[in-house]
Amino acid sequence: MIQGHGDDTWRFDRPIRANFSSNVYSRVDLTALKAHLAARLDAIGHYPEPEPYALERALALQLGLDPSAVCVTNGATEAIYLTAHAFAGSQATILQPTFSEYADACTLYRHHLVPCAAPPGPRATCWICNPNNPTGDVIPKDDLIKTIEDHPKIVFVIDQSYGFFTQEPLLSAAEAVAFPNVIQLHSMTKRYAMPGLRLGYITANPQLLDCIRAVRMPWSVNALAVEAGLYLTAHPDTAPIDLAALLREAERLRGALDALPGLTALPTRTHFFLCRLDRGCAADLKQWLAVNHGILIRDAANFEGLDERYFRIATQTPEENSRLVAVIRQYLKEVAS
Amino acid sequence: MIQGHGDDTWRFDRPIRANFSSNVYSRVDLTALKAHLAARLDAIGHYPEPEPYALERALALQLGLDPSAVCVTNGATEAIYLTAHAFAGSQATILQPTFSEYADACTLYRHHLVPCAAPPGPRATCWICNPNNPTGDVIPKDDLIKTIEDHPKIVFVIDQSYGFFTQEPLLSAAEAVAFPNVIQLHSMTKRYAMPGLRLGYITANPQLLDCIRAVRMPWSVNALAVEAGLYLTAHPDTAPIDLAALLREAERLRGALDALPGLTALPTRTHFFLCRLDRGCAADLKQWLAVNHGILIRDAANFEGLDERYFRIATQTPEENSRLVAVIRQYLKEVAS
Repeated sequence: MIQGHGDDTWRFDRPIRANFSSNVYSRVDLTALKAHLAARLDAIGHYPEPEPYALERALALQLGLDPSAVCVTNGATEAIYLTAHAFAGSQATILQPTFSEYADACTLYRHHLVPCAAPPGPRATCWICNPNNPTGDVIPKDDLIKTIEDHPKIVFVIDQSYGFFTQEPLLSAAEAVAFPNVIQLHSMTKRYAMPGLRLGYITANPQLLDCIRAVRMPWSVNALAVEAGLYLTAHPDTAPIDLAALLREAERLRGALDALPGLTALPTRTHFFLCRLDRGCAADLKQWLAVNHGILIRDAANFEGLDERYFRIATQTPEENSRLVAVIRQYLKEVAS
Repeated sequence: MIQGHGDDTWRFDRPIRANFSSNVYSRVDLTALKAHLAARLDAIGHYPEPEPYALERALALQLGLDPSAVCVTNGATEAIYLTAHAFAGSQATILQPTFSEYADACTLYRHHLVPCAAPPGPRATCWICNPNNPTGDVIPKDDLIKTIEDHPKIVFVIDQSYGFFTQEPLLSAAEAVAFPNVIQLHSMTKRYAMPGLRLGYITANPQLLDCIRAVRMPWSVNALAVEAGLYLTAHPDTAPIDLAALLREAERLRGALDALPGLTALPTRTHFFLCRLDRGCAADLKQWLAVNHGILIRDAANFEGLDERYFRIATQTPEENSRLVAVIRQYLKEVAS
């Protein structure tokens, strides 16, 4: 596992007041969900289902799928590791830069990592994060479909953890399940800002998904995560997010950062994006922001294909965003100059 | 994964009023823990540590170990699967009958399962549940130590999930860590009756444990499980259990069942034990008890080495236990005769 994921607030003695480091958009009202969980704390006293079938049925109903096409997991992370396990020893291509866990999981399960241009072997997977972490890129839907159709022998693992957070068209779960060679990974954590509970799921053609079910251990999803999932599927209006407003604010923030001398903020299709310092390193900026301003950003130097100049910003409230721009301006002018 | 673990209350339309099917002794007062979790529900909004180091430090302090000798897991189940993964492809011996997950995990990770008497290969593990599920047997401590010392090339995986629930002497974590070839698995679930949260841990010589840490995925332990673990290590007097009274009641229950014509209740060193019907099958008794009396038992037919006559009973309250004896007497007399 790499060291240096986002949301590493525990590293700092000083309280973090504004956290731009996690892609989880946390400005959602979880009052109702927390009240539900508080009322259901007795669930800790019983084993969850060995495999969380009840929640799989509820999600399948919501997504218009057969329950055999849905596999609930201990966060999207378990979805990644189960998929890597199911295809252990395969040839794997990972579109970089991206979330490091794909490569970690593939390495753990002895995949042969090859570049995109390599001819596919008899068992080949292609890992795509869409929208992509950390860039915020989205692959045009038609291009993605053409690629899937043109390579029927490659299994495409498409992580749509951030799928809610873009207005670009994406493959729906129902569309993806119709392909014999697509595995979609989903995160309830991201949409509902509850990364502490660990809840994700996989959707795929049942025949493909059976390979994944075959390698999962029992009781991996805790009872409160299951309770939350059942609640959220029964109450789809919980924790609404004004996505258009969030993406407008992301674009405002990105523009303001990009306008700072000494920094480039890269285009995005979602609420987070990469920035690149002209000189110096993001680790120093991260440390300075945390120690002096209680602000946390994501040093992106450990993403493959990026270097020490890159950091990732996830959009917060307009006030926090403006404050971030102001203090980074100060840093670039006074500290890094 | 086998079908038919215990605690399968969800299978029955009728509410289960007395649950003898799970080895988790649930007659503990979790009021304080639940109040703590209710106050800490905000933890769902943040990622847990990628690896739960804070809880590992707290447990290490409690156990008198170095933190590098403790690895917290998503229930003892993850501890089993991580251990099987770390020793993938090994020769494995499993003392049967026992918890089926050892064999499932070893099979998943391509271990070569061999009987006890087989000569050990270059990489060999021996899986021991102590106290053993489902029998309640405990291996005499001196015998266990001698076996470990006599076989330095075999890694002994000793699952002490039920370690709290016996008065027989066991290897302490500190004693076990001193061996280069012992991995101990522990369950906080069992001691504190919180199987819904999923919290276990591994203790071992740090060099051995490093092999296991190398295969664990990040964020596998959810934030509320970590909160619970930190609370319970800080408040060791939470949820006290009068073990002597529980084991006396277990012996009373076992004796009463053993006295029924048509049934043998096997000796045990803990609060659960096996029963064997002289004729008929435990599945029928289980169904009859659930449908007619809202009582759940564990059909033990799917344990390797047992057959359809066996079921497992975990001791409950004296009133429930007496009721169980009465209705099983009725079953043996009226239904199965």
